[in-house]
Amino acid sequence: MRSKDIGHHISAQFNAELEEIRSKVLTMGGLVEQQTLDAVRALVEGDSELGETAILNDYKVNALEVTIDEECSQILARRQPTAGDLRLVVAIIKTITDLERIGDEAEKIGHLAVHLAGMEGNKQHFNAINALGEHVHTMIHDALDAFARLDVEQALAVAKMDSKVDEQYNGITRQLITYMMEDPRSITRSLDVMWAARALERIGDHATNICEYVIYLVRGKDVRHTSIEQMEEAARKH
Amino acid sequence: MRSKDIGHHISAQFNAELEEIRSKVLTMGGLVEQQTLDAVRALVEGDSELGETAILNDYKVNALEVTIDEECSQILARRQPTAGDLRLVVAIIKTITDLERIGDEAEKIGHLAVHLAGMEGNKQHFNAINALGEHVHTMIHDALDAFARLDVEQALAVAKMDSKVDEQYNGITRQLITYMMEDPRSITRSLDVMWAARALERIGDHATNICEYVIYLVRGKDVRHTSIEQMEEAARKH
Repeated sequence: MRSKDIGHHISAQFNAELEEIRSKVLTMGGLVEQQTLDAVRALVEGDSELGETAILNDYKVNALEVTIDEECSQILARRQPTAGDLRLVVAIIKTITDLERIGDEAEKIGHLAVHLAGMEGNKQHFNAINALGEHVHTMIHDALDAFARLDVEQALAVAKMDSKVDEQYNGITRQLITYMMEDPRSITRSLDVMWAARALERIGDHATNICEYVIYLVRGKDVRHTSIEQMEEAARKH
Repeated sequence: MRSKDIGHHISAQFNAELEEIRSKVLTMGGLVEQQTLDAVRALVEGDSELGETAILNDYKVNALEVTIDEECSQILARRQPTAGDLRLVVAIIKTITDLERIGDEAEKIGHLAVHLAGMEGNKQHFNAINALGEHVHTMIHDALDAFARLDVEQALAVAKMDSKVDEQYNGITRQLITYMMEDPRSITRSLDVMWAARALERIGDHATNICEYVIYLVRGKDVRHTSIEQMEEAARKH
């Protein structure tokens, strides 16, 4: 992307600025990745202290969003990028919105973990939540990697993982509903687990959005609201 | 905003382009406003046909998002706006993301409406859903109006409405939990109502985000992740 056939840079300074913003996006991504891991582990292990960590770390994510947005606006105003450079800046503005919302969902899971840690009850759905958490964590990690390496094939692979997340989420929801019907005293607790599953499902959607921006960035084609098949076609077009 | 002390336009053509994009944003806003109204009415009145309308209309919202995004990128590349004009384009890129997600939430409510219309059961929580729907509808409408008139006072007023939405949402959730515990056969149905309430609560958040962009646009200050008091200070600063 940063090669001379796409960008036409007036200066090495401009390149350095773009690299610095990209690196901040990856830092922000690393934060929400860790926040998600912490929140899921806190929930599954009943570790309310780790849950608090996941909650408190959200302010760092929010602060980075504001900083990166400001730097993108400055680059747009001062450097007036075009073509690939412009797409990079627009893709970053969108990516950080999704990263921030992943942070919000991880924060919610942190609150649920703290709430659940203080409650009696069995943990029979925690394995399924853990599996969903691992799946979603891989999606965030690989989406960020696709963004870092501008790898459309990987972006596509991550987007394809989302249907598995939806399956896992639907399975957990069905099990929890049955469980609540059998034991109405478990309702409050089961709803907390259901909200956590829902938050993880949303994180999968945000990771998928980031992959769509990577394809837009590299191929110049907007693949939002299209099928996986249309995304494949766009990704493979050279 | 469009006055000569902020923008320095090379041409009337540029002004016309910006106005056209703004008007498309308002069209998109009008669509999600109607979609939300239809979805809530479909749910409350058990009208599955209207629910389908709310679902099907989402493609129009999605298509407008892609079109407006493309036009914003073109304006950034060809016109290289600065200062207030640049903030307008950035605020539009962000606003349409929230409008698109309001559309997604309305679509979800449409699906829930169709599902609920096919189920036996009482409607005792529908009044509360209706009230929440009306509240949230006012927020979307007034947020769009604040965007159209660049009215920071109104943006602030809408942002303040969100705590009321959270209260209403928490009230509905509490009532539904009690209800599910008393009558476990109502669980599936009650969860549908709960998801609808949740979707409305999210719509309130998206309307609030739009108000934050209006304040950023007019005052040049990013008020995301700040308290209502800090927002007030930023909005009133001249």
